[in-house]
Amino acid sequence: MSATASTHASNAEVIAHDVDHVFHSWSAQAKLSPIAIRRGNGCTVEDFEGREYLDLSSMLVNVNIGHQHPRVIEAIQRQAAELATVAPANANPARARAAELILSHAPEGFNKVFFTNGGADANENAIRLARLHTGRDKVLSQYRSYHGNTGAAIVATGDWRRVPNEYATGHVHFFGPYAYRSEFWSSDEQQEGERALQHLERVIQSEGPESIAAILLETIPGTAGIIVPPAAYLPGVRALADKYGIMLILDEVMAGFGRAGEWFAFDAFDVKPDLITFAKGVNSGYVPLGGVVISEEIAAQFDERVFPGGLTYSGHPLACASAVASMEAMADEGIIENAHRVGAEVIGPGLRELAERFEVIGEVRGLGVFWAVEFVADAQTREPISEEFMGQLKNAMLERGALPFTSANRLHFVPPCVITDEEARRGLRTLADALAAVAAG
Amino acid sequence: MSATASTHASNAEVIAHDVDHVFHSWSAQAKLSPIAIRRGNGCTVEDFEGREYLDLSSMLVNVNIGHQHPRVIEAIQRQAAELATVAPANANPARARAAELILSHAPEGFNKVFFTNGGADANENAIRLARLHTGRDKVLSQYRSYHGNTGAAIVATGDWRRVPNEYATGHVHFFGPYAYRSEFWSSDEQQEGERALQHLERVIQSEGPESIAAILLETIPGTAGIIVPPAAYLPGVRALADKYGIMLILDEVMAGFGRAGEWFAFDAFDVKPDLITFAKGVNSGYVPLGGVVISEEIAAQFDERVFPGGLTYSGHPLACASAVASMEAMADEGIIENAHRVGAEVIGPGLRELAERFEVIGEVRGLGVFWAVEFVADAQTREPISEEFMGQLKNAMLERGALPFTSANRLHFVPPCVITDEEARRGLRTLADALAAVAAG
Repeated sequence: MSATASTHASNAEVIAHDVDHVFHSWSAQAKLSPIAIRRGNGCTVEDFEGREYLDLSSMLVNVNIGHQHPRVIEAIQRQAAELATVAPANANPARARAAELILSHAPEGFNKVFFTNGGADANENAIRLARLHTGRDKVLSQYRSYHGNTGAAIVATGDWRRVPNEYATGHVHFFGPYAYRSEFWSSDEQQEGERALQHLERVIQSEGPESIAAILLETIPGTAGIIVPPAAYLPGVRALADKYGIMLILDEVMAGFGRAGEWFAFDAFDVKPDLITFAKGVNSGYVPLGGVVISEEIAAQFDERVFPGGLTYSGHPLACASAVASMEAMADEGIIENAHRVGAEVIGPGLRELAERFEVIGEVRGLGVFWAVEFVADAQTREPISEEFMGQLKNAMLERGALPFTSANRLHFVPPCVITDEEARRGLRTLADALAAVAAG
Repeated sequence: MSATASTHASNAEVIAHDVDHVFHSWSAQAKLSPIAIRRGNGCTVEDFEGREYLDLSSMLVNVNIGHQHPRVIEAIQRQAAELATVAPANANPARARAAELILSHAPEGFNKVFFTNGGADANENAIRLARLHTGRDKVLSQYRSYHGNTGAAIVATGDWRRVPNEYATGHVHFFGPYAYRSEFWSSDEQQEGERALQHLERVIQSEGPESIAAILLETIPGTAGIIVPPAAYLPGVRALADKYGIMLILDEVMAGFGRAGEWFAFDAFDVKPDLITFAKGVNSGYVPLGGVVISEEIAAQFDERVFPGGLTYSGHPLACASAVASMEAMADEGIIENAHRVGAEVIGPGLRELAERFEVIGEVRGLGVFWAVEFVADAQTREPISEEFMGQLKNAMLERGALPFTSANRLHFVPPCVITDEEARRGLRTLADALAAVAAG
């Protein structure tokens, strides 16, 4: 079956062809249940038999600009016609322009972008920069976090995926604020933030501040549950970093470029990092791309000293051209603002309404197009709901034509930033119908 | 300056725009000397002022199929029009077909491909698979090697780049065969191979065989000097791996997909690995892509057990479509065979002729379009030639319209696999003229 012929194949043929040859991420290979996807458009994808799905997952919280945005597709086709790739030591205008645009959305005091292939190696290189700049080794990150799948990034990650992969040194984990499931016996959001900062400072003191190169945080922990921090938390982390001479790396791989209704999610908080990592939304992953936005102070360290990191596809013209078009379209078409507004006016209120209707919803939290719905077996004890329930909910949504993102006992409502009010309402109705169906058994 | 406008910019403007915003790989940022590259075609690239260069570097030994191969460009444009990206959990025919084609070129006994973004995370995941399959921790690799820039890959790397990055555990290095600069006091190629195997077995025994998950080798160490191993070496490594229950990972990131005049460089040797890593030549890096080819035995380990690795862009449709087109074009157009033949008939003989004319050439070695010319200050002591000489040689080649790849005291003659006899001869003449000019001061 050729790639061309297979566009006329059935879903079953495409799936069989795939699982026979492709080894899948984070899976037991005999238990795969992929959906065959032929094409996409905005918030919709279509399988090989003409069935459409409303994409409430953004494909791993990736296609912020939606599927197949015409300006980005055209930019890929145009750059492909001119020059797909060059070695990183060369100069190319697509790369320079992408860096310039990214910097235009960053705060004052950032002046260079180091491009990588994705979020994992963005975090690898941010950690490297922080270690070399400070001359210190340790990296502090949260238990509830995901930072990528390579050597250091996977050990910086806090969740279960770290455990079979602990072959990197210098990583220490701590608890972040999470008022709904507090690790600090707190009674409200404000106290949660204060105690989380006290806990972090005690970890810093106990590890030895002079040994700590960086605190690495997702601005809003994503896969771990879209855990929006209390307003005072990130400014407090910044103050601790300053007090102890530690670099603050904010991982904006999932939260950045519109997801939180801001160019960078930290724009919603009163905080400025030393290093910013990005991927996904920068070009909606149309071409693999990630990177690190570097402060002037850290960049200057490597004016005369060789930076000991690099990669063949760093600043890839095709990837960078797609990022340029994506950022330009986002600005021209008010896509960031749309995500902000839809979240505040439609998705947030809609999910909160569902929480009142369905007792299984323990908490709703989020902003922009970045929302978590946490399901519980018992509203008082907050015991997470069963895996079986989550499987049924997922299937019920698929049957009703929506692609959901589920993780543990949560549904993440994470559509593209271009979602219309009507599409958002349709997604909310689908979720309501699916919940009603599962509740009815 | 927009990306479009800048295509009419001068080289100086493009370069200034780039170095003002882009942080470069493996460099001191105040000492960059990029060449501005606007477009390419086959073995030629062109700057923004219409000057053409014969690309003898393949852009970090990457564009095996040459620049802008029309079938690959068309495949990118076509797939972009249909579907740029999906989440890795989905099924897509471009991904299945790419895996199928890669497997068709692998030996018997391989049945799955895990796709990554590049060579570094390919090696990360191969190491992960070997560790989980064996239940052992250590990874043995050569001092003269490069395996990528992420957490484990950079520590598996043997060269200087490892040293500021040693934050991964379980890595042990050993010396490989290199007859021209033997670590084993050997007097010929055969003895070098035998002693290198004896050395490796002593390292295995001394580290404790039951602690060793994998031996990770570039089939032909590339950046370290295109060090073609003696014929008996890799079969001997395979025998040691079998004897001690160790997985053999062959890193084909640089050597594979035509570079050595074979689909996989190990096809030139009597050896079969357990895991194969690839990137670069699989699609000439037109879209970032890498991966691991997995043996049936190792893949079966993860039928029921979750593989703890993955990434958002795994099996990226745009990247996979470009790989399909690239492999199909390579097969249809005899591109692998061309690389084999040009190497044997033109480049090899041509470089050996230069070695007779120029005393500074200490050794010429290679195959396919994968050749190293090693320069020495003294033919007897084999003392490497000065950095100054290499800088002059590089500039002399650039002035004569050729892009060279230089590393330490070596020039790597590594044009695209599509190079014609006439282009190869032109490259050889340029090298001869440049050498004569440098010799003349």
